[in-house]
Amino acid sequence: MITIAVANQKGGEGKTTTSLNLAMGLARRNFKTLLVDMDPQANSTGIFVNPESVDKDLAHLFQNSVKLKDIILPAYNEYMWIAPSSLRLAEMETVSVNSVEAPYILRDAMQGLGEFDFIIIDCPPSLSIFTVNSLVASNFVLIPLQAEKFSMDGIMGLQQTISSIKKRINPDLEILGALITQLKPQTLLTKTILPVLGKYFRIFDHTISDGVAIGESHLAKKSVYDYNKSSRQSQEYEGFLEEVLRELKK
Amino acid sequence: MITIAVANQKGGEGKTTTSLNLAMGLARRNFKTLLVDMDPQANSTGIFVNPESVDKDLAHLFQNSVKLKDIILPAYNEYMWIAPSSLRLAEMETVSVNSVEAPYILRDAMQGLGEFDFIIIDCPPSLSIFTVNSLVASNFVLIPLQAEKFSMDGIMGLQQTISSIKKRINPDLEILGALITQLKPQTLLTKTILPVLGKYFRIFDHTISDGVAIGESHLAKKSVYDYNKSSRQSQEYEGFLEEVLRELKK
Repeated sequence: MITIAVANQKGGEGKTTTSLNLAMGLARRNFKTLLVDMDPQANSTGIFVNPESVDKDLAHLFQNSVKLKDIILPAYNEYMWIAPSSLRLAEMETVSVNSVEAPYILRDAMQGLGEFDFIIIDCPPSLSIFTVNSLVASNFVLIPLQAEKFSMDGIMGLQQTISSIKKRINPDLEILGALITQLKPQTLLTKTILPVLGKYFRIFDHTISDGVAIGESHLAKKSVYDYNKSSRQSQEYEGFLEEVLRELKK
Repeated sequence: MITIAVANQKGGEGKTTTSLNLAMGLARRNFKTLLVDMDPQANSTGIFVNPESVDKDLAHLFQNSVKLKDIILPAYNEYMWIAPSSLRLAEMETVSVNSVEAPYILRDAMQGLGEFDFIIIDCPPSLSIFTVNSLVASNFVLIPLQAEKFSMDGIMGLQQTISSIKKRINPDLEILGALITQLKPQTLLTKTILPVLGKYFRIFDHTISDGVAIGESHLAKKSVYDYNKSSRQSQEYEGFLEEVLRELKK
């Protein structure tokens, strides 16, 4: 079982889009996949179910230590499931924040989920206890990132969080790489920032272009592959997925 | 004195870009303007000063109840100042969260700042105590928003927060409107979402197009007007600013 946290404390960088297309892409290849929506904004959840109709979600897990398998729901195809989120999860942050046990809740809850080939965790846009839980529970962290100044400004904080977790709790955590999203190729901005970024993280060869197919696929509640297979973004996410699978075999 | 909170709990919607260009645009018109950076990620602050070289910031205000005027620094031109933020501010959230006094800290600190024509508050990407403080201290709230599914999904939460603050604490708070950012005109997405959005908020006639001038201006640490006056985004922000000024005169 391989667990990948999709993390970046800045919002709007492509965490949910990447988590969704990674999870659905794996499920399309018949890998048994669980998507864990750790973001109280529940955007991933909303693609598959109505968050308001969900009976038990990750908030209950953080409240009661129920097992993850007791809240998961079928999603997309016969190879995929989702652990849903809801706004209730946000309230758990202050409940859990002072406990020594707080960083371990998700990892403990994942015990006995060995039937999955992949668990993909869509982290919230913060370095809160939910992102910490996700990194503690993962083998790899994947960082979606725009080639933008404000995106760059925050990566030191993310690096420090990853380093602390690696040192104190989860020595096996590895950075899988940074995926550049919403790329406008050939712009001055891209040319200026990409070389700097490469000093901080391994950057995936495949990048995701800016374009409408992604936004339209969310509205259609589909993966970008199912929404428009011939779109540039669909082909880029396919290439990225192949690159991830190659990287994991190393 | 008119105080405008630029708020949206989703990240990547254009809060900082809008706050910066609104504040600098007002200062260019010789309005005495203060930009308050309520986001611990300190992206607004970083345009004018090095956040790490700042002696006192908004974290001290939330910790010690110092006056806002004791932390403000000159920025941009002789008509503009900034109240800087830093990552330290994030730690104040749990300190303040349980107190009855918590929502009033910024409003109290703003006492005696009557010399400013405008105060623009760049809110963090959350509905945390910092956004609550900003809305309690403001006359108006301005909502930057993309025409995207995940952007739409969160606006009920923002509406509820605004309603609660209006009912309980700040009856004068008004929604100035929603500014559509990163617009890709003529797309299916835009055509589908804009009519729905109009049912929730007044939408400004001016919208901000997707394009490179914004990102490049951040890298150059300039307003979009100063970076590239003839760019489409510069002209759109100018038009938006005129529309804001007309709206405030009503």
